Order: sequence, then C-alpha cells, then structure tokens
Amino acid sequence: MERVKPRTLSGFMELLPQRQMQFEKMLEILRSTYSRYGFTPLDTPVIESAEVLLAKGGGETEKQIYRFTKGDSDLALRFDLTVPLAKYVAEYYGQLSFPFRRYQIGKVYRGERAQRGRFREFYQADIDVIGDGKLDISNDAEIPAIIYDTFRAMGLERFVIRVNNRRLLNGFYGILGLTEKSGAIMRTVDKLEKIGPDKVRAILVEDEGIEPGSVDEVLGFTSITGSNSEVFAQLERWVGKNELFDQGLEELKTVARYLDSFGVPEENFRVDLTIARGLDYYTGTVYETAMLDHPEIGSICSGGRYDNLAEYYTDKQLPGVGISIGLTRLFYVLEEQGYLNDDVITAPADALILPMTEDLSFAIAFAARLRGGGLRVQVYNEAKKFKAKMNYADKQKIPYVVFIGEDEVKAGQVSVKDMRSGDQKTMDPAEAVELIAGGVQSTARVIREKA
Amino acid sequence: MERVKPRTLSGFMELLPQRQMQFEKMLEILRSTYSRYGFTPLDTPVIESAEVLLAKGGGETEKQIYRFTKGDSDLALRFDLTVPLAKYVAEYYGQLSFPFRRYQIGKVYRGERAQRGRFREFYQADIDVIGDGKLDISNDAEIPAIIYDTFRAMGLERFVIRVNNRRLLNGFYGILGLTEKSGAIMRTVDKLEKIGPDKVRAILVEDEGIEPGSVDEVLGFTSITGSNSEVFAQLERWVGKNELFDQGLEELKTVARYLDSFGVPEENFRVDLTIARGLDYYTGTVYETAMLDHPEIGSICSGGRYDNLAEYYTDKQLPGVGISIGLTRLFYVLEEQGYLNDDVITAPADALILPMTEDLSFAIAFAARLRGGGLRVQVYNEAKKFKAKMNYADKQKIPYVVFIGEDEVKAGQVSVKDMRSGDQKTMDPAEAVELIAGGVQSTARVIREKA
Repeated sequence: MERVKPRTLSGFMELLPQRQMQFEKMLEILRSTYSRYGFTPLDTPVIESAEVLLAKGGGETEKQIYRFTKGDSDLALRFDLTVPLAKYVAEYYGQLSFPFRRYQIGKVYRGERAQRGRFREFYQADIDVIGDGKLDISNDAEIPAIIYDTFRAMGLERFVIRVNNRRLLNGFYGILGLTEKSGAIMRTVDKLEKIGPDKVRAILVEDEGIEPGSVDEVLGFTSITGSNSEVFAQLERWVGKNELFDQGLEELKTVARYLDSFGVPEENFRVDLTIARGLDYYTGTVYETAMLDHPEIGSICSGGRYDNLAEYYTDKQLPGVGISIGLTRLFYVLEEQGYLNDDVITAPADALILPMTEDLSFAIAFAARLRGGGLRVQVYNEAKKFKAKMNYADKQKIPYVVFIGEDEVKAGQVSVKDMRSGDQKTMDPAEAVELIAGGVQSTARVIREKA
Repeated sequence: MERVKPRTLSGFMELLPQRQMQFEKMLEILRSTYSRYGFTPLDTPVIESAEVLLAKGGGETEKQIYRFTKGDSDLALRFDLTVPLAKYVAEYYGQLSFPFRRYQIGKVYRGERAQRGRFREFYQADIDVIGDGKLDISNDAEIPAIIYDTFRAMGLERFVIRVNNRRLLNGFYGILGLTEKSGAIMRTVDKLEKIGPDKVRAILVEDEGIEPGSVDEVLGFTSITGSNSEVFAQLERWVGKNELFDQGLEELKTVARYLDSFGVPEENFRVDLTIARGLDYYTGTVYETAMLDHPEIGSICSGGRYDNLAEYYTDKQLPGVGISIGLTRLFYVLEEQGYLNDDVITAPADALILPMTEDLSFAIAFAARLRGGGLRVQVYNEAKKFKAKMNYADKQKIPYVVFIGEDEVKAGQVSVKDMRSGDQKTMDPAEAVELIAGGVQSTARVIREKA
C-alpha cells in the first residue's frame, strides 16, 4: 500500500499527552474562574458567512483570513471571538439579559506567515461584559481583577496588568491641538517599548509632521511613572483644560480605586500612560499584561472598553469591556521559558490496576471504587510480561500500581505499589483508596516561576 | 452606516445561554467520566493537509468535505476524529505509550445537505484504545461500559447498547458460501430496522442475486432474539463449521461476560445479530446505542474494533477499539423530545450581589468569600432602578440575591433573598455562605426521561 507521510501543518499546535494535560489544566482553571465570576459559556461556529464576519472590513486582518466557497456560499473561518460575539448579541438581542456576561474559549484562524511561535490556529480565551445602552465603570476594574485571579490560580505571580485610558490620551492630544493626529500618535507611542523614544520622536516629527515641541510634550507625558497615586498627582496639571481628558482621568482613577477594592495588589497592576492598543475599536480603559521577567514576550492578555460592540449589525448601542488571553501563544512561551510545572500530575491515570486472574470482577469492582472517589484508573489487562506492564506505568508516571492476584482475591485485599517511593504493601481496599487518594493531590498550578 | 444582517449559517448549532449551559454540563460529564477511566485528552487541528486527511480516499464522505486552498496549500477541515487520531498515532508513535487511551471532544465538518436536525458543524466525543501489535479483548467490553456510565451520569436510563461481531457475521456468510457477498449483505441487513425484512429480502434476492434459500437463512439468523444467553445457545448450531464464526462467537461471549463484570445490567446491553455498521473499517466487535423510547432516532453512539488504525500512514500494526457520540445531534434530539432537564441550574450565577453603597469593598469581599466556596457570583453595579435589577435576576433564574446597603455594611451583615421562595433575611456573612451553598445543589443530570 502506498503510504502518506503523517504530518501536522506548520503553525498548528499539536501536543504530546503530557503537555496536552497541562494545557487542559489551564482550560479548567479558565472555565472555573470565569464561571465563578458569573460569566456564561458561549460557543459559536468556527465557520461564518464571509459577509457577516467581514462586515467591519478586515484591514490588515482580512489578508490573513481563511476564506473559501462551498456550493454557493462565501465562507470564512473566525479570526477572533469578538466579531462572533457582536453577531451573537445582535442576532439574539431580544432573548438576552444585559449586562450580558459571557466567556468563550475557542480556536481562531489567521493565515499568518509561518514562523516559530506564530500560530495559524490558536485558542483565545475571552471574557466580555456587554451593556444595553450603558455599562458601569466598575466593570472596567472587575475584568482585570478576574485576570489577576486567573493567572494566580495558574501559578503566575510575576506579572503586571497595565491600565490606561483612551479618553485621557485623546484629551491630552486635544490640549496640544493634535486631535487630528491622535490615531497616528497612539499607534507610534504603542511601539515605545519596542523601538525606544528616539525612534518614536523621529517618526512623529519626520513622518507625521508634528512640531518637535509637541512631540516633547507627548514624550514627557508618556515618561510619567511612579506609583498609581504619583502618576495621578502628575496628571493634575492638565485638569480643567479639556473635558475628555478630565473624564478619562476620572475613569482611570475610579478603575484604580476599584481594582484596589477587588483585592489586586498594586504590584500586579499599574497605571501606564504608554499603552494605547493599536485598534480604533477601544474608546476608554485599555489593558495589557506583561510578564515581569520576560517583557520581550509582549502582552499576554489585552483588552479594553468599547462604546459600540455591534454597530455593523444593529442600531442598538451596546457598550462593553473585555479582555482576551492568547492561550496557544501563552502556552508556547511558558514551555519555551521552562515555566511549565512538572509537579502537575500529567499521567493519564492515578492508579494502574494489574489483574493477575482470569476473572476480572474483583479488579473491576476495585477500579469502580477508586473512580467513585474521583480517582482516574486504568485496568491493564494486556497479555504482556510483568516488566512491560511496569514500564508502561513508569513511562507515563502513573503514581500507583495495584496488583490483584489469586491471593489478594481470596483475602479480599489488594497490593499497592507507590511508584515514587517503591514501597509495596498488601491492604484492605478501603485503606488502599485512602492511600491513593492522599497521594495524588496534584497542584493546579500549571506555571512555576523560576527563583 | 450600512448594516449587515447578523445571521448564523444553517446547519450550524448556536445556543442561547441556558441551553449552552446544559450542553456545557454534558461536556463536563464526558470529560470527567473519560478521565476517570484513564483516557488522556487529545486536541488536533481542525485544518489538516487534504492529502493527509484524505489518504484513505473519502468515498461518500469526500463529497461533503470542506476543502480549499490557502497560498499553495491544499487544505481540508476534519470530518471525523478517527483520521486525525490515526495521523497522530503514526506521527508520534515513538513517543506514545501503548495501549494508548485517548479521548477527544471536538468539532468536525461535513457539508451535508441542509435539513432539520442535520448539522454541518458538530461535536463528536470519541474514546479509543490503540494497541501496538495486539490489544486484549477486554477493552471491547470496557468501551461500552464507559458509555453506560457516561449516559447514566447524564441521567439517561432507557437505552440499550447493542453489540455484535463482524467475524461472527463473516463466518456465518462463509458457512453459506456467501463470503464474496458479505459486504453487500451487511450493508443491506444494516437497514433491517428501517426498511423491514421483506425489502431486505427483495434487495438480496433481486439486486444481489443471492439464492432465496440462503436469504432465508440470513434472515433466520438475524431474527434470533432473546436474552444474551438464549442468543448464544441458538448460535451453537453453527459452531465447528467455520473458524471465523467460532472466533467471532468466542469474542462476543467474552465481551458479554466482561460487560457483566463491568457492572452493566443486561437491560442496557444486548447481543444483537442485526447490527453490522456500514463501514469496512470494523473487523470484530461492533456497537450501536438506541434510545428505547425513540428507536426512530437511530444510533446515538456507535463504534467497534478495527485491526489497523493507521495503515495509510505507517506499516505498524495498530489495532484498536473505540466509540463515538455525535454530541450535537444527541443534544438536538434531547431538546426536540423535551428530555433536557430544567432542574439543572442554568443561571449564569448562583448569587447576584446588589451593592447599595458607593464603596464596593464590603460587597466585593463578600463576593470573594462566596467564590472561595466554589459559588458563582455576579456583583451587579449598574445604575438601574431596583425593579430592573430584580428582573435581571429573575429572568436569568439566579437563585439568590444579596442586598448590601449602609445598614448591612455598618452591622457587618448581608440580606439574602431566596428568589424561589421569596424569603428574605438579614444574617452574618458566614451564615449566608452556608445558606446559598446549601440551596444551589444542582443536579448534574442533564437528561430527564419522561415517566
């Protein structure tokens, strides 16, 4: 038979079982954290009508989209989870309750140029709160608070959520008489960390034709640092000059105050006047999240406030605030940096049962008992040598092996081997359940930071 | 602004939040049951190289495949989870432990003609055990036992897993001298339930040119019914005439005996000589699962034993046994039949906190306390009238509303309203946590059969 070489397309992540288990733990943490904040799960099709998906016009994204026809239909694969959310909220508006809080964890598709660490199929994990007409500013603080909880639950500690406000920025550019240039300035200032202030200055002066004096003011503004209250104190000097500025500052102060109420320590969130987010989409609060020991990675989680989620589909005013974790890339980076915690039990089972008798009833009943206690159990009944069976457990790091032979069945007992210590003991089933359950308390912390 | 009508493609399931929550519960049950049997999660790309995906040649399926090009690449969306498993096992063979036990729950794509209850994007939930060279027959019994556990956990009781063996069938056709016709006979007999014995007879005699006498023997064979031991007793008369028949019977008996060991009651599994599964793929045990009160729905879960999972990719002999639930269709049918259990809590939160003070700290701290106890909590801080807030809770069936006003903050207490009874009481936070936790014990049984 002629064979086809089995291969996976480049730019598509496919994991070996142990890694997949760690990825799965991250998904579990996301689902449970998001649920505990009262977000409802949402699932939308991967394929949508191209007309619907590209209603906004794709810009840069459009070139990357997987688009094709099937029969008469012009179809496309979703490239983010925000456009499907907009479609969903507009389509089912009358049947939803607002504020509508949803989370969605799903794969999205972008035909990017293949390169290491860039993915064409990747998971996004999004939370958004959508208001009907209005949406309280406290939501802008709760969203990063949830992210704080989520990352902490995963085991990440050395990260900072950087918060800014687009109204504050637009107001400031207004004060300088640069309202027309605000888009260009934001996109350029966004690159500050990457290309440095000199190049930013050059672009703004030479390419954008902004007065050097104004550029100095912009760079002076973005260089304001310090604790959140120090930053706010320095911003006071512009208060009263521009309504948008004042409104933005008020919002940013409120978000900072609430974030404190939500219990996020100041070392994990910071008012940062340099971040703007490239997209036009955002209108108020904006977020980025950096790993403190790896700023070169860029933002691992971003989002912000928008005034109008679904304007391409409906005339309803639907303001919202949301954030998105690029999960596949985050996982890739964590693996690259050696941050994946190998103390997480990645074995497919907590116990492997080796029946040594023809009749499996006793072994199966004991397996059911362990499973009833929430444990993960395999009954291994292959015709293999004893050594091969032990190798199977060993290679997969299954922590306990249970032998059930004629003697055990007669005595109504089981022999349990702790694969880590090598200890083996024959005992009553009840005792064995307790022993195994006590020995497999796996940490949920998928991420382990280096000292 | 010109607007695009928000719409979802036909043949693509998209659920409202309450239904989505029920679907999510089914996913949770699947993940946890499959894990407890020691299956490891697998995730493979939705997009594969068309050459890899269609290595086997698609037959009927090929016409339905979503296939397209991007750049130079000839791509296709997966149409099942078995081909990606075959690719995966062949590609990573050296890094896997065998028997390799994996579960995969994911979307697959088939461009079927749109019609009610037919989906172009649908979830499959698969388990398979793959051996390296050999695989013990006990796995053929464990697979339906897991399905039994899974459906029971969902709340389904009135179902039967029908088990047969392809070797037994092929051996029987051999005894009749019809080995050449075995494929055609199986495909025709598979339709017995749909079209009845007269039409099956007509097809076999007229279209396939089989002797009427032989057809009578085939129909006599498929009409053998009774308890499993009664069926086995009737099959004895052919023993010793054909090696394949004897082997198939032995396997079938072993599977039935083990299924008993695995604790599956005989009312939920049955040896059934009429089922054959259309695909060439299967070589031994085959399964179908019917809902007893809705046989017209057809099989809700099917699978079987195969000799060679990945022959199109590798020369390794990889026998396996597996089963697949067509989850989207199952969910659709359950909804249609009124089987979805509305006692499952489908609210986005267990408690809604209404802060009546400017400072949210107390409310947020109480929310965190509830979440620490595993509860799902929303803090509702929108500037709405009291009635609108209560409507929000009511419409979404959130079972508890917690009021936190000046008085409560001063006294360090909270006022809890049970939305189902209407009772409201002011109490200490600890008491409130206990009350709410005790009141939201939601059933996991997504399916409720009618009396």
